[in-house]
Amino acid sequence: KSKESRGILGIKEEVDRMANFKGHALPGSFFLLFGLWWSVKYPLQYLSQKLNKKSHRTHYFQRKLHALGCPAGMLAEQFVPDGPHLYLYSGEKRDWVKLMNWQHSTMYLFYGLSGVVDVLTYMFQVVPQGLDRLMLSVAVFVEGCLFYYHVLHRPMLDQHIHSLLLIAVFAGACSILLEVFLRDNIILVMFRASMTIVQGTWFWQIGVVLFQPWGGPVWDENDHSNIMFLTMCFFWHWAASVAILTVNYTLAYCTKSQLNKQMQNSVSERHGH
Amino acid sequence: KSKESRGILGIKEEVDRMANFKGHALPGSFFLLFGLWWSVKYPLQYLSQKLNKKSHRTHYFQRKLHALGCPAGMLAEQFVPDGPHLYLYSGEKRDWVKLMNWQHSTMYLFYGLSGVVDVLTYMFQVVPQGLDRLMLSVAVFVEGCLFYYHVLHRPMLDQHIHSLLLIAVFAGACSILLEVFLRDNIILVMFRASMTIVQGTWFWQIGVVLFQPWGGPVWDENDHSNIMFLTMCFFWHWAASVAILTVNYTLAYCTKSQLNKQMQNSVSERHGH
Amino acid sequence: KSKESRGILGIKEEVDRMANFKGHALPGSFFLLFGLWWSVKYPLQYLSQKLNKKSHRTHYFQRKLHALGCPAGMLAEQFVPDGPHLYLYSGEKRDWVKLMNWQHSTMYLFYGLSGVVDVLTYMFQVVPQGLDRLMLSVAVFVEGCLFYYHVLHRPMLDQHIHSLLLIAVFAGACSILLEVFLRDNIILVMFRASMTIVQGTWFWQIGVVLFQPWGGPVWDENDHSNIMFLTMCFFWHWAASVAILTVNYTLAYCTKSQLNKQMQNSVSERHGH
Amino acid sequence: KSKESRGILGIKEEVDRMANFKGHALPGSFFLLFGLWWSVKYPLQYLSQKLNKKSHRTHYFQRKLHALGCPAGMLAEQFVPDGPHLYLYSGEKRDWVKLMNWQHSTMYLFYGLSGVVDVLTYMFQVVPQGLDRLMLSVAVFVEGCLFYYHVLHRPMLDQHIHSLLLIAVFAGACSILLEVFLRDNIILVMFRASMTIVQGTWFWQIGVVLFQPWGGPVWDENDHSNIMFLTMCFFWHWAASVAILTVNYTLAYCTKSQLNKQMQNSVSERHGH
Repeated sequence: KSKESRGILGIKEEVDRMANFKGHALPGSFFLLFGLWWSVKYPLQYLSQKLNKKSHRTHYFQRKLHALGCPAGMLAEQFVPDGPHLYLYSGEKRDWVKLMNWQHSTMYLFYGLSGVVDVLTYMFQVVPQGLDRLMLSVAVFVEGCLFYYHVLHRPMLDQHIHSLLLIAVFAGACSILLEVFLRDNIILVMFRASMTIVQGTWFWQIGVVLFQPWGGPVWDENDHSNIMFLTMCFFWHWAASVAILTVNYTLAYCTKSQLNKQMQNSVSERHGH
Repeated sequence: KSKESRGILGIKEEVDRMANFKGHALPGSFFLLFGLWWSVKYPLQYLSQKLNKKSHRTHYFQRKLHALGCPAGMLAEQFVPDGPHLYLYSGEKRDWVKLMNWQHSTMYLFYGLSGVVDVLTYMFQVVPQGLDRLMLSVAVFVEGCLFYYHVLHRPMLDQHIHSLLLIAVFAGACSILLEVFLRDNIILVMFRASMTIVQGTWFWQIGVVLFQPWGGPVWDENDHSNIMFLTMCFFWHWAASVAILTVNYTLAYCTKSQLNKQMQNSVSERHGH
Repeated sequence: KSKESRGILGIKEEVDRMANFKGHALPGSFFLLFGLWWSVKYPLQYLSQKLNKKSHRTHYFQRKLHALGCPAGMLAEQFVPDGPHLYLYSGEKRDWVKLMNWQHSTMYLFYGLSGVVDVLTYMFQVVPQGLDRLMLSVAVFVEGCLFYYHVLHRPMLDQHIHSLLLIAVFAGACSILLEVFLRDNIILVMFRASMTIVQGTWFWQIGVVLFQPWGGPVWDENDHSNIMFLTMCFFWHWAASVAILTVNYTLAYCTKSQLNKQMQNSVSERHGH
Repeated sequence: KSKESRGILGIKEEVDRMANFKGHALPGSFFLLFGLWWSVKYPLQYLSQKLNKKSHRTHYFQRKLHALGCPAGMLAEQFVPDGPHLYLYSGEKRDWVKLMNWQHSTMYLFYGLSGVVDVLTYMFQVVPQGLDRLMLSVAVFVEGCLFYYHVLHRPMLDQHIHSLLLIAVFAGACSILLEVFLRDNIILVMFRASMTIVQGTWFWQIGVVLFQPWGGPVWDENDHSNIMFLTMCFFWHWAASVAILTVNYTLAYCTKSQLNKQMQNSVSERHGH
């Protein structure tokens, strides 16, 4: 990785770099949060189904979060100091205003829609089951498409690191689409969780590789071995997410079986009297 | 968007431009009509199934429309003043005559075939169920293929705006194909409806962007930000179609529940006597 | 289409041209035969299932034909006067011998294997059902792959006309693959039949377009409108196959219902005595 | 195939060539072993299911082998004399160390994970069924992806011969993914077995073609007929794997029926007394 290209960075660039890094770290944390949340929730749900009981509250809370969080994100993208403030084009040359922010708003829009449908499905029996999954799948698919056209004309390293993200995005979209027809299939939901975790951590990786938040040498755009390493690294993230899921599943199992023991004890005691 | 390229348009070009615009607006309206019609029909059907009754008349009317409309379209394409009038090639150099019109006729042909199969499936018990869906899926797929080869060698903006259409077309074709095996699945039919609406509105968008029916500056073919905007815009159409479906579904639900109340009242009154 | 390129054809080329044409017409007729056979057989089978009886003889005959025909084809490809006679390479420079014939032999090999599995599945209960379909699907897929690499470096028109064939081939392979899990689904078998018919007729079309068996001008390789016409023409073949299937299905239905009437009459007469 | 390029090979290159060949022969044998093992195991399992009994020991042994073998492979890749010894980058220029070995370790890592999940699924009832299949499918998919980016910038022949491998890899990954939902489907498991055998034998083929372990002329990278032959050759491997499966299935059937006869005899004898 060439050290020279590092020296020529001015203060302005420094600022942009940090902004760009945050731009990747924020959604990354968001996805990571959801992924981890799911990796705990679904095993618990699955294991408690075996004991014929369900916990709805947490469920509902998440749906609300999902449905309210996204519009918030949209507004943020629009009204940050250097945002488009809902202007699409300006000037007599009619240039587009801040297309980036508009694209991110669009992504948030679809996640917001899926959140709304989610809440509706939960509240009203009449909304056909599976519609929430369909909308979520569409939202993820839309995110993938926007990314695809987004990085089409970038330098090689940038394009490759984002195209790896697309593997996780589209794999996730497909598995969610299957959930429309195979609802609450534990395999599918855990796959979804792992894909979401991978997406989250990989967003961080992208930020770190392209914008060195903590300094360090710039990555050489044209060094093929960098490409090779990142390809490999992406799958390490995947392996890590599998490890996380395994741990969470085990924890969920232990707690569940603990609770059941206690209940049985209390029951037997009561019978004892 | 460069203003200069606008000045050099002559009257002849003006005429062609309007013709081209109409050529996109007409099928657009057609798809939009069907999409909206489905977005009302299927929710009603789905909700009334829950009350064990069905309304066949409207259904049959649509099938007839479908089966008769397309041949009409084909003839129109053939015998418009500057149509091929069924001539395929002419002159001693054997040049092809009006391949565009022929291609459109081909599309109409397949939609016509699917309409015919639709009517047959409705009329005769012996026609295997799902054949109508298969033919419809094939028709949509054929439309997609013809479009694909159609725009392969166009300028970038033109190609991109049409390739976005293909997303809607092929997504629609796939979901209809699924209907062969999962007949009357409310999720699938509503997805089909939304894809059809998107197709309809996007046809209009294409017409507006490429041929400025109401004047305005020509879009710069080579400005990458135009590409970025249109990608985003396509998904706004998608979001709009989702909104429309939600509204129609809600309306359908209200009317249904209204009717049921009235019926129950009348029943209870009769019992009252 | 340029007339000049026609004049420079010598006698040698005439011979090759006819050979090439036959090379496309032969498999074409083969596929056409099977397609038509299926388009009659499956409707009859489907309709007679509704009357709880089956006719196995024809079935078995076809399987035998299938299993024996292909090895015959392989031997033919190998031992025709200018065939490789099982030599793979020759000379001290170790050049490959007649790779074309070898490729065709490979295709026959897989169709032969699927035929053998077909017969075995029919003869022995222990062979798992669906294996015959899997092998057939693999055979069609292999044909497609070989074609794909086969035409990769040809002139534009040649490549395009063959790539259209691949649509029919791979669509067929997928539908047959579905048959592994949805055995004897009337929709799937009729789709398979139509794809096979299209393949057959399109082979003929390719032969006619590239090698003018009955003279006529050579097609201009670089005229884009030729590409456009052929794309359209391919789907006309498809539409024709749909028409054929409709006719055959109707005929099958009429004959069946005729037979049933007669049987019922004879039964009632017997009861009359 | 040009003889000249052969002469200029020095001793050093000879050594590398053998190393490279072994690098392909080893995993090849590994896959071949598993494929053959499955091609015997699954028919036996399937046939004994029909007689309502199962043999678990062999099963468990394989799982253990699978789970322990892969970590061993990883360590081997890391700590062979010229391995990276867990160093990722080195030197003040921070060059990557032995990315090849790292990539192979990554592949082993995923096969190892799938082995672990396999054992867990077998040992604990609480692990959801199908998770083992999902992990195996992911492992195969990851192997495919790494290969894809691995050979992207190689000479034509090298790239083509590896891309043929990808057909077997991804076809295998898909069929294993189906097994998540259609567990113990005899068709799917036998397809998996055949794909694994093909992968194994094709690894050997790659080694032989690219590195001539037993001398012989070097293959001409740019001779298109070599490409054509290898395409064909790949499908011969496929056909061979089908033949192997057929033989093993038949053997499995014979032994089974033999055993049953003996058992019945012994039973009848006992009854005789």
